[in-house]
Amino acid sequence: MKDSKPIVLGINGFKKSGKTTLIERLLKVLAQQGLRLAVIKSHNEPVVTDKPGTDTDRFYRGGANVLSYDGQSVFIKQHQKDAFGLEEALIKIGNCYDLILVEGFKESDIEKIWLLRKDETKPPENILHIITVLKWADEPQQRLEQALKLLQRRLGKLNEG
Amino acid sequence: MKDSKPIVLGINGFKKSGKTTLIERLLKVLAQQGLRLAVIKSHNEPVVTDKPGTDTDRFYRGGANVLSYDGQSVFIKQHQKDAFGLEEALIKIGNCYDLILVEGFKESDIEKIWLLRKDETKPPENILHIITVLKWADEPQQRLEQALKLLQRRLGKLNEG
Repeated sequence: MKDSKPIVLGINGFKKSGKTTLIERLLKVLAQQGLRLAVIKSHNEPVVTDKPGTDTDRFYRGGANVLSYDGQSVFIKQHQKDAFGLEEALIKIGNCYDLILVEGFKESDIEKIWLLRKDETKPPENILHIITVLKWADEPQQRLEQALKLLQRRLGKLNEG
Repeated sequence: MKDSKPIVLGINGFKKSGKTTLIERLLKVLAQQGLRLAVIKSHNEPVVTDKPGTDTDRFYRGGANVLSYDGQSVFIKQHQKDAFGLEEALIKIGNCYDLILVEGFKESDIEKIWLLRKDETKPPENILHIITVLKWADEPQQRLEQALKLLQRRLGKLNEG
């Protein structure tokens, strides 16, 4: 299984649609199954507040993109002109996983689960590649089971292949 | 020049040998020449202090490696078992550069400039692929000129190629 391509699945929806809760619960179950997992998440807020005067900041101000690595975590400070999409994010996280869940990158062409908020009845029409729409559920367990069912089918195929 | 492979050069030496100063000065000159620059730096201290309770932290505790992206900066929180070397760092930073300077990763097999401290006369014998040793200089301009001379030769070749 080591070298097979990871399954990449988007968990999308508007704010407060329950994306983080669902991802967290999915990870808990799938990690117990020994799967190798990654999450890619795009934010509106800055992911890191780098202090002025660090080496990273000095090199960045010097005009370079900077990658800092402490043996475990990586921080890449990039200039605006080098903004990238999901394809590049997938390269950066690597491919030694069974499953990569993606939050954000709504416009990408990967398959997605779409989460409806309580007040919504259907996903927006401009979002493509939605394979399942999950209605709002007051009890998160419901959605977890629906998403797991879908994922287990795909992961099962992976194991067979 | 867009698709040519970047030149990768290590700037190495022990603590307080002047690595950060030299890199900062090199960037300043080379950025003015319009070169696309990156720096890869390995740290002993944590590069980012992620707060408990962030989404990144929650997914990480859920067993996943997590990549967070805000349209400019990237933070990757990886589990210890996925520690990597320079080769993987080069993939993560991307290759749309003319020059990538590397601080740290002393054991790697890239070509390196070695910086001596005031009290040192030669580099350690176990460090390989040193192409130039720069003596300590009270005036950083000296080393900058030596390193630039070496780099311009290589970058010149790149431009011709």
